Amino acid sequence: MELDCSGIVTRLGKWSVGPEPLYQQLAGGLKKAILDGAVPPDTLLPPERTFAGALAVSRSTVVAAYALLRQEGWLESRQGSGTKVLGPPLAQAKEFNPVARNPVFEQMLDRGEGLIDFSGGIPAELKLADLKLTHFNLSGILQEPRYLPQGLPELRQAIANQYSLKGIPTSEEQVLITNGAQQALALVAALYLQRGDTVVLENPTYFGAMDAFRGAGARLVGVTTDPVDGLRLDLLQRVLSTLQPRFIYLTPTFQNPTGAVMPVEQRKELVQLAEKNDLVLVEDNTLADLELDQAAPPPLAAFAQGDNVITIGSMSKLFWVGLRIGWVRAAPALINRLTRLKQVNDLGSGLVNQVIATRWLDQFEAVKEWRKQELLAKRDLMLKLLQEHLPDWGCTRPGGGLFLWVRIGPSNAGTLAQLALRYGVVILPGNVMSADDSYSQYVRLPFLLDPPLITEGIARLSRAWESQAVLNKTGQPTSGFIV
Amino acid sequence: MELDCSGIVTRLGKWSVGPEPLYQQLAGGLKKAILDGAVPPDTLLPPERTFAGALAVSRSTVVAAYALLRQEGWLESRQGSGTKVLGPPLAQAKEFNPVARNPVFEQMLDRGEGLIDFSGGIPAELKLADLKLTHFNLSGILQEPRYLPQGLPELRQAIANQYSLKGIPTSEEQVLITNGAQQALALVAALYLQRGDTVVLENPTYFGAMDAFRGAGARLVGVTTDPVDGLRLDLLQRVLSTLQPRFIYLTPTFQNPTGAVMPVEQRKELVQLAEKNDLVLVEDNTLADLELDQAAPPPLAAFAQGDNVITIGSMSKLFWVGLRIGWVRAAPALINRLTRLKQVNDLGSGLVNQVIATRWLDQFEAVKEWRKQELLAKRDLMLKLLQEHLPDWGCTRPGGGLFLWVRIGPSNAGTLAQLALRYGVVILPGNVMSADDSYSQYVRLPFLLDPPLITEGIARLSRAWESQAVLNKTGQPTSGFIV
Repeated sequence: MELDCSGIVTRLGKWSVGPEPLYQQLAGGLKKAILDGAVPPDTLLPPERTFAGALAVSRSTVVAAYALLRQEGWLESRQGSGTKVLGPPLAQAKEFNPVARNPVFEQMLDRGEGLIDFSGGIPAELKLADLKLTHFNLSGILQEPRYLPQGLPELRQAIANQYSLKGIPTSEEQVLITNGAQQALALVAALYLQRGDTVVLENPTYFGAMDAFRGAGARLVGVTTDPVDGLRLDLLQRVLSTLQPRFIYLTPTFQNPTGAVMPVEQRKELVQLAEKNDLVLVEDNTLADLELDQAAPPPLAAFAQGDNVITIGSMSKLFWVGLRIGWVRAAPALINRLTRLKQVNDLGSGLVNQVIATRWLDQFEAVKEWRKQELLAKRDLMLKLLQEHLPDWGCTRPGGGLFLWVRIGPSNAGTLAQLALRYGVVILPGNVMSADDSYSQYVRLPFLLDPPLITEGIARLSRAWESQAVLNKTGQPTSGFIV
Repeated sequence: MELDCSGIVTRLGKWSVGPEPLYQQLAGGLKKAILDGAVPPDTLLPPERTFAGALAVSRSTVVAAYALLRQEGWLESRQGSGTKVLGPPLAQAKEFNPVARNPVFEQMLDRGEGLIDFSGGIPAELKLADLKLTHFNLSGILQEPRYLPQGLPELRQAIANQYSLKGIPTSEEQVLITNGAQQALALVAALYLQRGDTVVLENPTYFGAMDAFRGAGARLVGVTTDPVDGLRLDLLQRVLSTLQPRFIYLTPTFQNPTGAVMPVEQRKELVQLAEKNDLVLVEDNTLADLELDQAAPPPLAAFAQGDNVITIGSMSKLFWVGLRIGWVRAAPALINRLTRLKQVNDLGSGLVNQVIATRWLDQFEAVKEWRKQELLAKRDLMLKLLQEHLPDWGCTRPGGGLFLWVRIGPSNAGTLAQLALRYGVVILPGNVMSADDSYSQYVRLPFLLDPPLITEGIARLSRAWESQAVLNKTGQPTSGFIV
């Protein structure tokens, strides 16, 4: 695994949130990353000045951190060949596969106290008590004497019915229940991908999908996505003229992260293109139920004549991420094959979750309306605050979904993220959502937290932005906030 | 994928359970297997006489089935080069990865009515109502605003406490919650295995583990397991002198399927061997809590000085398979790496299941006692019935677990399984639990069904056995039951 400077910064995660001097915190962060295997032995660390720039700290901080780690036996520096990772001192050398690490997944594992987190996509708690949906008696389901690898028949049927009601006739046999949309992506990856295969996807896109596909050994090719109309078909066609992907992955409705909605005509065209060229389309509609002031067009599956479209859905965003209920809708023969992979993976999803999901789906429309009002107010609050406090930034006004897609101008969002952390707010630079590491001038801002936290978070962000402006002007980190 | 005759029989599943003539059922089974991709285009089907023998049908049945499929365009026969699969007529040609298919996983998907199923390992319903463990209010857990990729802290702590109580000090950081033991196996496979790597495991062993490791591209090397003392260390050492496996997988307590229990001295020796040679041991203790009249020794982890032992556990057998709660116990750095794979796989297990699991674990001892009484009675009933009705068979008397391991003598268990199906009982031949397809004279019989079903199942099995004796005598399927 070759790691460049930005890769190492990413793997460090939230290193700068403790009370210790910065150089000790940096050394501690590096140790943790080395212990976890995220920064493996023999990695060449960046030169001190480069690393300092990327971390928005002074060069002396990096010098002191390297010196400490050398002294303790973690690193080795040689004249002319830089600073190399030796590994944990005296540790047993064990080989592992490299494990994908992306910064959002890191955030889940490594929470600083008092931080305002603008990194994840977790909606606020649903007021289910009002809907009398919180008490359950398990006696009935406990009598189920089987593994149900495809999922609970009632839930499969309920999900099929939802598609049928929207005019897309669907049977239970076309639905596989998964542990959220993420497992659906992992199963699709396992079914189609061998090491070296190509996947075409939107640029930018959902990082969890990139992880799943890369984990299966795929090469990812991004196609630029218009923040209003979504995946650009002209560019897609150009890409397809030179390579043959195993499938095309996209989030056509309230695109993650841009919020784009692919218009109906473009959907038809894309499906026709796929059918003509025998291409598989994997559409991820995890955010599609989150209509705010824009209606979601029918899914790609609505326009398909054959079996080319695989549709992924989830209850995580509308209902609750802790439920872990997602699904794949596809042709029955494909569902059979995905089910076999699901069996090898975990034999089937938990049945209690599925009973709850089935009952909750009865309240789909009520929950959708509740979620819409909640998110609309938060989106508008965040847009207003950004306009007030950060007027230089360019921002989308998405008609649905969970995210604003914000261009912070020529500045580097990675540096801003480092500074923001020290002001107590977590943001994700856009390049972690890009197959080719582009969009480093962008930030994805979810409008999900409680209004007071949104307000305080944007205030902190604007202070970090001001400090970056100072930094840009002097060309050096200022000593006011960097020790 | 090269398929031999027994591979094709395996992939056919339960083809002979309908009311139609056998040749039509056989043609239907082949069509389904071709549609699913289990028997892919270009597969050479076995010669009619060979196939008839393996399926325990007359040659004319196979001749008629092949003729029907040729007529409909599924097969092609050419003079001198046999019968080849063309694929579904007029179907779109789509490429897929080969998907592992094992007969037990097949049983889950393909249930015939009225069959008595001796294939799976699903315990009877626990009487949880008596323990007041069936009513839940979700209000508390719904407020959890995070993904918890490692699992619910309370559950991780409860599982850690169980180990600590047994004298194996364990912290929350050493526990990762998974969707049952199967996902634990899949994650361990994803962490350690690349295509072409070697895994050493017991012969025979749990087929779901073989599927997970093969799915990751591993080559499996089986080491013969003694039905009393488990994995033979002398043979293991011989194997290790010529190859370097990524890890050794074993079920040391109430071995699946033999019921063997590795003695304490042998456990110490194995762990020392692993530590000396820097080998990873993956112990799967899914069945270890099912003590009937033999006490389970401490897990391998109890004898480890370093971090070489990975321990897998599950609540599926003692409590309920529908809960899908398993775990990995390992060194914290390893848990971190497995957690990252878990994130890519499904972001974390369902929280409701984990709340329930935490509460159920409070009743661990009571449930263990209840399960013991239930299984003891069933084991003894099954042993008694086998002695009465099938005295020629040799059978273990396991001190725990769920399975009898039965030697049916020189007869082939695959042929018996085909006949048994027609008598309305599903059994698994031992070779599906073997990395090298050996143990084809063995059958794994679970003592799990209600006593009347056990009684009726063994009665059917003995009728199938008698018909096999007739078949063996005449060297030809008899027409009484084979059409």
